[in-house]
Amino acid sequence: MAPIDLNSDVGESFGRWRLGDDAAILRTVTSANIACGFHAGDPMTIEQTARTAAEQDVAIGAHIAYRDLAGFGRRHLECSYEELAADVRYQLGGLASMAAASGARIRYVKPHGALYHAMIAHETHARAVIDTIAAVDDSLPVLLLPGSRGLQLAAEAGLRGVAEAFADRNYEPDGTLVSRREPDAVLHDAEAVVANMVRLATAGEIVARDGTVLPMEAESICVHGDTDGAVQMAAAVRAGLQDADVEIRSFVA
Amino acid sequence: MAPIDLNSDVGESFGRWRLGDDAAILRTVTSANIACGFHAGDPMTIEQTARTAAEQDVAIGAHIAYRDLAGFGRRHLECSYEELAADVRYQLGGLASMAAASGARIRYVKPHGALYHAMIAHETHARAVIDTIAAVDDSLPVLLLPGSRGLQLAAEAGLRGVAEAFADRNYEPDGTLVSRREPDAVLHDAEAVVANMVRLATAGEIVARDGTVLPMEAESICVHGDTDGAVQMAAAVRAGLQDADVEIRSFVA
Amino acid sequence: MAPIDLNSDVGESFGRWRLGDDAAILRTVTSANIACGFHAGDPMTIEQTARTAAEQDVAIGAHIAYRDLAGFGRRHLECSYEELAADVRYQLGGLASMAAASGARIRYVKPHGALYHAMIAHETHARAVIDTIAAVDDSLPVLLLPGSRGLQLAAEAGLRGVAEAFADRNYEPDGTLVSRREPDAVLHDAEAVVANMVRLATAGEIVARDGTVLPMEAESICVHGDTDGAVQMAAAVRAGLQDADVEIRSFVA
Amino acid sequence: MAPIDLNSDVGESFGRWRLGDDAAILRTVTSANIACGFHAGDPMTIEQTARTAAEQDVAIGAHIAYRDLAGFGRRHLECSYEELAADVRYQLGGLASMAAASGARIRYVKPHGALYHAMIAHETHARAVIDTIAAVDDSLPVLLLPGSRGLQLAAEAGLRGVAEAFADRNYEPDGTLVSRREPDAVLHDAEAVVANMVRLATAGEIVARDGTVLPMEAESICVHGDTDGAVQMAAAVRAGLQDADVEIRSFVA
Repeated sequence: MAPIDLNSDVGESFGRWRLGDDAAILRTVTSANIACGFHAGDPMTIEQTARTAAEQDVAIGAHIAYRDLAGFGRRHLECSYEELAADVRYQLGGLASMAAASGARIRYVKPHGALYHAMIAHETHARAVIDTIAAVDDSLPVLLLPGSRGLQLAAEAGLRGVAEAFADRNYEPDGTLVSRREPDAVLHDAEAVVANMVRLATAGEIVARDGTVLPMEAESICVHGDTDGAVQMAAAVRAGLQDADVEIRSFVA
Repeated sequence: MAPIDLNSDVGESFGRWRLGDDAAILRTVTSANIACGFHAGDPMTIEQTARTAAEQDVAIGAHIAYRDLAGFGRRHLECSYEELAADVRYQLGGLASMAAASGARIRYVKPHGALYHAMIAHETHARAVIDTIAAVDDSLPVLLLPGSRGLQLAAEAGLRGVAEAFADRNYEPDGTLVSRREPDAVLHDAEAVVANMVRLATAGEIVARDGTVLPMEAESICVHGDTDGAVQMAAAVRAGLQDADVEIRSFVA
Repeated sequence: MAPIDLNSDVGESFGRWRLGDDAAILRTVTSANIACGFHAGDPMTIEQTARTAAEQDVAIGAHIAYRDLAGFGRRHLECSYEELAADVRYQLGGLASMAAASGARIRYVKPHGALYHAMIAHETHARAVIDTIAAVDDSLPVLLLPGSRGLQLAAEAGLRGVAEAFADRNYEPDGTLVSRREPDAVLHDAEAVVANMVRLATAGEIVARDGTVLPMEAESICVHGDTDGAVQMAAAVRAGLQDADVEIRSFVA
Repeated sequence: MAPIDLNSDVGESFGRWRLGDDAAILRTVTSANIACGFHAGDPMTIEQTARTAAEQDVAIGAHIAYRDLAGFGRRHLECSYEELAADVRYQLGGLASMAAASGARIRYVKPHGALYHAMIAHETHARAVIDTIAAVDDSLPVLLLPGSRGLQLAAEAGLRGVAEAFADRNYEPDGTLVSRREPDAVLHDAEAVVANMVRLATAGEIVARDGTVLPMEAESICVHGDTDGAVQMAAAVRAGLQDADVEIRSFVA
């Protein structure tokens, strides 16, 4: 049985605005997607988050995003290949510098929000992201949705693609995520979520919205830390996996 | 006779807004103060400017600034030591990454605008800047005004401080710059400027507003490229120094 | 023969960055699309531009845009109806206040850049814009592309829609604009442009890229002022129309 | 016994970031200082906050600020008179438009954070704020610290100045606020705070840090809503005043 990684978004505070219980979630996960300043994350927040991650031996990932603080990176921004490539490169540099303050470094990349979604099928943006990561450091894995165009491009570019599943998201029978516009997009029943993730980690399967059992190979599970309930669900997923003798380990460990 | 460096601000365009004739000025200077994104410089601009500088063997400097696009970094921002230190570190990372795209790297640091001014006597901000540079890379020289508190702190921190003179700025008899609020703050007579800079480079003296001759040791001369006249004056300064057999060479060459 | 309006984008400077010769173009046009701060236009710029427009009896239009200074509002931003509606309402208020400083007021609205393009067929965004204008002041005309969905929605909402033609843009035989990705998207031959615009104003026809003569009813012609050539072309269009005895008058005059 | 107003800062969320329990605090206060977008407050947040205030008959105040989202308007920004005046005017317009969506309007102005502090003694900034309010609508009262230069300037400009006290802040014996850098700057003992505010409202006195009893004439008391404890303290202040038969009423009612 393969080990599995737990990843979560952190460092998403900005100035006066606090978001998420990063301290709690960093005790649960093995990989930390740290905001790089374009959708969230002022430099002080980024530096402190990277320090905590480094202290707890959590792998630091660059949570790159569209330049959109007002929209938290959740709105598609139809920028050009060149703009996006430069924005990604800049963000990787910003985070690298903040991580270096703790003697740490970026270990992987995960696109955030609307950019994550664009990696599924937006050829120009997927290429801009993958090409830039490959140019900056082709040893960096990139965390993406199974079946996404980004994963194909990563493979072609010699990058390691890491497929992930979402603990608290519902799946369509075809393996795509249920749209957030649907009422049952997000799962709230911790017990069911834990069972589903244990099944994923032990049998390589996930149960879709309509009960269909889908094969799904994922090296990582994404959990959330932006609400109290989310932090508890993340801890429950971790405990459930441990109870099932699944090794929890970062994919870069 | 010591060699002298010519430095200028570049990479200060932002998105649709173009500023300065960077191509022209980069043919004139030996050190390029490249905007890092906080007062100016979108990532595409930064990357292209760094590439041009690298191609022309111009040393790349980090032109760090307060976070203030609307004010172009020219307004003092009373942030905390911690905020400023983190902002500086982030900017150094952002530029480093863009320079690396051309196989280049940051060779020195120069604070911009109001932050440059704060280095003269604002203890907290001067310390935040110097401490951060020292922590990031203590081999990086820092370009500052002669007599500034920042130069003292740099020396204490084991950083190389580089004093500079301003070609087109008028000086008070005490060696400080004439305030921009005064009508004669900026010099427009290219011939006088060239003569003044040749005198600086050959005799270590500068002529103040009232005719006083001041001793001034400067390893670099700051020229501008944001207007047509400025570019021509910069070229005239370069030609004048060459005619006087002054070697023009970056202080990091 | 109906009178025709000339409109142009102004107030698009931002802080240190200057864009366009607003003084020159405001002597040429009858309607001024003034940036509202979201794609360009800091408050000082907006206030000064509105003052100049008011002094010269040029109608003030609100050039509303997506919130994207880095992209100058030229990149589609997939925000929600509610976000866009609120952003539009805020921009209308910001400009209204700056115009009031000169005793002037907003006379019409024109979406800018990618938002202008979204008005053609993006149902959600077109509705958000039209609904908000109608809610704020249903006496405000809205300037849009002929055939756009926005014009239909304006009519349904009881708003006056004003169709415009672009002096320096090439048209496809179906009446749409040649994409800016095509080499002949923008016209540079002032004589041909003037002839085309005179034909538009006098005969209600425009000549497309391939020579096809298209019927086009436009109450306004958009000219540009962001380059020297553009300002001269704008003046040439004005002169050409006057020579052809076309009355040049704002559609709100 | 004069009636007293309770005011609080609201509408300080921004995009994904939520701040404060506005619904709770708006049930407690009589005046709502609504963020105008420059230190906090995206347009959707502003509109919704203004609507809630209007529905609950709470007076809407413009919480104008320096342009500094990253610093939440808490950092002094040394902008010019012209820049600040234009920024204030723009913010007043933005909020006015959002309030109009609920048929409401701005009833007063209160500078926020570092700008509030600048009103005490920064001649240029105090003048810029007062002059702009007077120019926009000289019927708008302005809420300021007793003894501040801003109050003097307001009087000279024919504006109504309204002095306020801070429920949860400690005072120096000279009537100034204890600096936030001091450990006892903020009061946490709700009982003592309530007693102090009742004394203020009934006897025109406040007890300073060292026990000194100071005369203080204030028409309004500022309470906070950005933490659970703050909301409860605000409610306690209201209840305490009501128990002491103090009429709680907006100064614009």
